[in-house]
Amino acid sequence: MSSTTLNARVLFNAVPQGVPIPGETTVYDSSQTIDLENHPLNGGFLVKTLILSIDPGMRTRMRKPEEKGYVPAYAVGELLEGFGVGIVLRSENPDVAVGQYLQGRGFLYQQYFALPSLPLGMFFLNRDPGVPLTTYVGALGLPGKTAWAGWKEFSRPKKGETAFVPSGASAVCSMVIQLAKLDGLKVIASAGSEEKVEYLRQIGVDVAYNYKNVDTRGVLEREGPIDICWDTVGGDALNAALDNAAVGARFLECGQMTILNKVGSRALIIENPMPTMGKGVSINFISSPLHIPKHLAEFNRTVPAALIKGTLVRSPEDVRHGLECVGETIRAVQMGETKGKAVVVVGEEA
Amino acid sequence: MSSTTLNARVLFNAVPQGVPIPGETTVYDSSQTIDLENHPLNGGFLVKTLILSIDPGMRTRMRKPEEKGYVPAYAVGELLEGFGVGIVLRSENPDVAVGQYLQGRGFLYQQYFALPSLPLGMFFLNRDPGVPLTTYVGALGLPGKTAWAGWKEFSRPKKGETAFVPSGASAVCSMVIQLAKLDGLKVIASAGSEEKVEYLRQIGVDVAYNYKNVDTRGVLEREGPIDICWDTVGGDALNAALDNAAVGARFLECGQMTILNKVGSRALIIENPMPTMGKGVSINFISSPLHIPKHLAEFNRTVPAALIKGTLVRSPEDVRHGLECVGETIRAVQMGETKGKAVVVVGEEA
Repeated sequence: MSSTTLNARVLFNAVPQGVPIPGETTVYDSSQTIDLENHPLNGGFLVKTLILSIDPGMRTRMRKPEEKGYVPAYAVGELLEGFGVGIVLRSENPDVAVGQYLQGRGFLYQQYFALPSLPLGMFFLNRDPGVPLTTYVGALGLPGKTAWAGWKEFSRPKKGETAFVPSGASAVCSMVIQLAKLDGLKVIASAGSEEKVEYLRQIGVDVAYNYKNVDTRGVLEREGPIDICWDTVGGDALNAALDNAAVGARFLECGQMTILNKVGSRALIIENPMPTMGKGVSINFISSPLHIPKHLAEFNRTVPAALIKGTLVRSPEDVRHGLECVGETIRAVQMGETKGKAVVVVGEEA
Repeated sequence: MSSTTLNARVLFNAVPQGVPIPGETTVYDSSQTIDLENHPLNGGFLVKTLILSIDPGMRTRMRKPEEKGYVPAYAVGELLEGFGVGIVLRSENPDVAVGQYLQGRGFLYQQYFALPSLPLGMFFLNRDPGVPLTTYVGALGLPGKTAWAGWKEFSRPKKGETAFVPSGASAVCSMVIQLAKLDGLKVIASAGSEEKVEYLRQIGVDVAYNYKNVDTRGVLEREGPIDICWDTVGGDALNAALDNAAVGARFLECGQMTILNKVGSRALIIENPMPTMGKGVSINFISSPLHIPKHLAEFNRTVPAALIKGTLVRSPEDVRHGLECVGETIRAVQMGETKGKAVVVVGEEA
């Protein structure tokens, strides 16, 4: 006896020139089906995808295969892959039980997929029923862990210092802002809408402004100098922050949104390096595979409890439904249009 | 009774567009005289200049006054100022004794000059007769202290790692190379002549090559990846090193010779930032006023003794004579033509 079920998926279709275009950079494909009861496992296990994360960093994988990078490039014609949450439906692998929740990297952008064993970066998840499932791709997933690890590795905060977090309403940045406030810092942060600016104020930002109406350079000249900058955007905001850096300032670089979607050269340009050199600034690139393992035990001891207790709050989520909206969500994330951490619900738990 | 003595000097004359031009960027002026016995001191003291350093960093001060910088810009029509060694000829200041040697910053590029009190960065020098006077602007002066402080602050060396020092034959870099070898590192270094390459081998460089004949990128692909890069040049060498950086690599930025003498934009450009981001590299700008004080006590306990013992060796010196050659020496330093630390002997000790 066999029955077939739709097994929709999202394929990488073409390397984008600038911002990824839904239907062109990626395509939704509903031509596949799967027999859930009889699909051959060959000693492996079958995963039902529940949640997929749409991370800003997916853009770095949408490159030509000959371009080097730390995370592998997506191959044209193959499935997208990234961070998610899933549940095991069937298993022939003695280490993996049916009903087990899984979290982390290595999720294919498909409703159901088989794996021989746990890939690097995918972990068993002890689901806390008090926490929404989407939290495991947000504050308790890569964004939260990246924020925690980068902050612990490089920030060296001193009470009374000033931190600047441009485009601060993202999942990563909102965790950073809360860590900075817990460390006793004055925090300056920007966002692209009044709604996000209001959210920044709610999580404790001292100087919150809309970068579409207010000049960053002017704000930093008045409210700086900057001791710590958590930068996910690069470009003008990075250069304004460098020009307003304090002596001995630490820059934590966690993505370069303005570079990734540029057509043509993607060079990182420091316009006016001489004062930066003189001020002894350090510019530190955060690598989640490198830095998270070092700080994960402390994260696990601290952050889940703090979220339940309310010392830390989850960032807003922009929850969308169905694999067919993955392409549009990728575009919206790159354009900064999403209202919080972008998550796609692919399957139901029950 | 009075007698006049020539008091030659070097003036900053015009902001250079690219490499400083002797006689145009700076001018030698022999129109001044001084009455050494009767020159009014007004409670201060009179210094005879013995040694002046021609530092690569002097170029950063040859900028328009409106350009910001950590070290003040030279004013057109005023004396050059920088690092030197001198001796006190006369004093009305009870804290400063006749015959006292002085070392550090705040030296005017003139044969004799009066000061009211010790400027910031100028120190009394307990002269060791076993050490040539020029050492106090080299291994025991700013270059040696900068190398020491930057290395201690940012390198975090692990035995067996690989360091890369482009243009490694300078006073700063030759100290860095020796510190790296003492820490058990493999060292790759380049220079612009066979003579300098041979010197690099003598101080322990494992892979020494002439960058005028050998492609840096090829060397780093064969001999890398690079865990630590001590960079005084920027540009292509920096980008080749970033592209061949190991995961978690530390870059120590100590000047950007290729940028300083560029006509037009002086932006620092990282051509291919995405792999650098993924590898969690940190880029640390060394600021001698910020970092030297933190590590000076350990320097003073260690380096003078190591030089006398021979554990550390002084870098070669390019010793020139007379203030009239300052302009040409500044040009030669910026062009990498000097054979070791550039020093101008201005006066005799006796």
